[in-house]
Amino acid sequence: MQRLTKKWHRDGAHVGLVPTMGYLHEGHLSLVREARKRVGKKGKVTVSIYVNPTQFAPAEDFSKYPRDLKRDCAMLRKEGVDVVFAPTDGEMYPAGSTGGEATLFSTYVVEEKLSKAMEGVSRPAHFRGVTTVVAKLFNLVLPDVAVFGQKDFQQATIIRRMVRDLNFPVRVIVAPTVREADGLAMSSRNKYLEGDLRRQATVLRRAMDAAHAALKRSKKISAARLKADTRKLIESEPDARLDYVEFFEPETLAPVADVSTGVRMALAVVVGKTRLIDNETL
Amino acid sequence: MQRLTKKWHRDGAHVGLVPTMGYLHEGHLSLVREARKRVGKKGKVTVSIYVNPTQFAPAEDFSKYPRDLKRDCAMLRKEGVDVVFAPTDGEMYPAGSTGGEATLFSTYVVEEKLSKAMEGVSRPAHFRGVTTVVAKLFNLVLPDVAVFGQKDFQQATIIRRMVRDLNFPVRVIVAPTVREADGLAMSSRNKYLEGDLRRQATVLRRAMDAAHAALKRSKKISAARLKADTRKLIESEPDARLDYVEFFEPETLAPVADVSTGVRMALAVVVGKTRLIDNETL
Repeated sequence: MQRLTKKWHRDGAHVGLVPTMGYLHEGHLSLVREARKRVGKKGKVTVSIYVNPTQFAPAEDFSKYPRDLKRDCAMLRKEGVDVVFAPTDGEMYPAGSTGGEATLFSTYVVEEKLSKAMEGVSRPAHFRGVTTVVAKLFNLVLPDVAVFGQKDFQQATIIRRMVRDLNFPVRVIVAPTVREADGLAMSSRNKYLEGDLRRQATVLRRAMDAAHAALKRSKKISAARLKADTRKLIESEPDARLDYVEFFEPETLAPVADVSTGVRMALAVVVGKTRLIDNETL
Repeated sequence: MQRLTKKWHRDGAHVGLVPTMGYLHEGHLSLVREARKRVGKKGKVTVSIYVNPTQFAPAEDFSKYPRDLKRDCAMLRKEGVDVVFAPTDGEMYPAGSTGGEATLFSTYVVEEKLSKAMEGVSRPAHFRGVTTVVAKLFNLVLPDVAVFGQKDFQQATIIRRMVRDLNFPVRVIVAPTVREADGLAMSSRNKYLEGDLRRQATVLRRAMDAAHAALKRSKKISAARLKADTRKLIESEPDARLDYVEFFEPETLAPVADVSTGVRMALAVVVGKTRLIDNETL
């Protein structure tokens, strides 16, 4: 991968990277199109497909995370992607392992502020896995531009911080969330939503709509009250449980006491056994 | 720096980096010559000069560490170095700071195994500062080859591990320690050694020579005994205090119980107020 991309750089081509965990949907394809737009016709677009074990906790869905490389490649071929980079665990982590005394892998990239909130509370080692694997992918693919999805907004904010702090020569683009017709944010994990759970899952979209509507009625509302209203709405669905809802400044992720226009809302909801996240600027 | 080095890459030039803290001596110049040898006449050699605050503990010699950029630049001009990269603290760490709640800098590169021993015991946050700043320098200078000194052997081993684990597209070269006529390893900190301390400082060289000699007499010696002998020799000097001496496998830094040919010896000694390190393969 490095040999190829170093050649691309020598040839003067701009290189775009879309890091994914595969099982692609329209959301991913919109990132691919954004990458193509950024690097131009003569540029090179690489999509990485890698379900990174170090960002999953032991109890999470690493082993059952949906995978379909053949279908993914067919979709990306249609999009005119130049390279699909799909390394194995053994290639990414020497000794094929990610913990315990036996592993030979011992270097991590850690972001210590932005990664403490929200997803970092529910998934304590998650972002350490993300920053480490994204640093690896940046060094392997050597992109000029990398495109991330707005749905994983905290992740994108942390990657931006990592790029700035560690001086990666990469421009980070965050592209809008793509939604199903009923407003559910596209996610590979939506595949888990069977029967009525699929309908219940639209409650994340409805919760954000309710916050928008509340802000239309009054210019400033206490975060505490909006949180309580959100919880009530979420838990009106029989199989939905609110993990967190936060209102915060987009750049610093600092929580606000009073919510007004421009504040970001983010929430995580477990529907059945599936954990879904969404976020939007109010 | 990135704009320049990206142009070099487009032009097909190989790029070499020698990271230093300045106040250069013959040891540094030998690294510069090694870098030139590796990238060739048409290649580009960059020397970075940066006294990195994050690798010093509060009680250490960060503020009094010797600096002389003008003299350094004159020396490097003579060596035909292409660029001296000497960033300020404000350029390297946003908000000019490296700790406390006020700083905006929050991403670190951490190596969690090799950095626990030896220097990592005496200087617990040292290597985290080193790996972070070297990652930054790699991303800023984008070298194909980086040259480190054998005197900082543990540092070089950790950088190699970081490069492998995070897939930096950089070849790490470790060049031999350059010594004064009496065997003292060259170091910017030797400047601190006044009067008889300069003579006493040769005890590191003498301690390694004694270990070599002991191994000539018997093929295998217990590390415990060699450590005791080393301590005795070091403390025969009135102003010298042994910080540590270790015998270990070079790649893993794993201590050995019995010392034989091929084992590495490393030691740190405080002479007066100056902490000196040295190491050698037996």
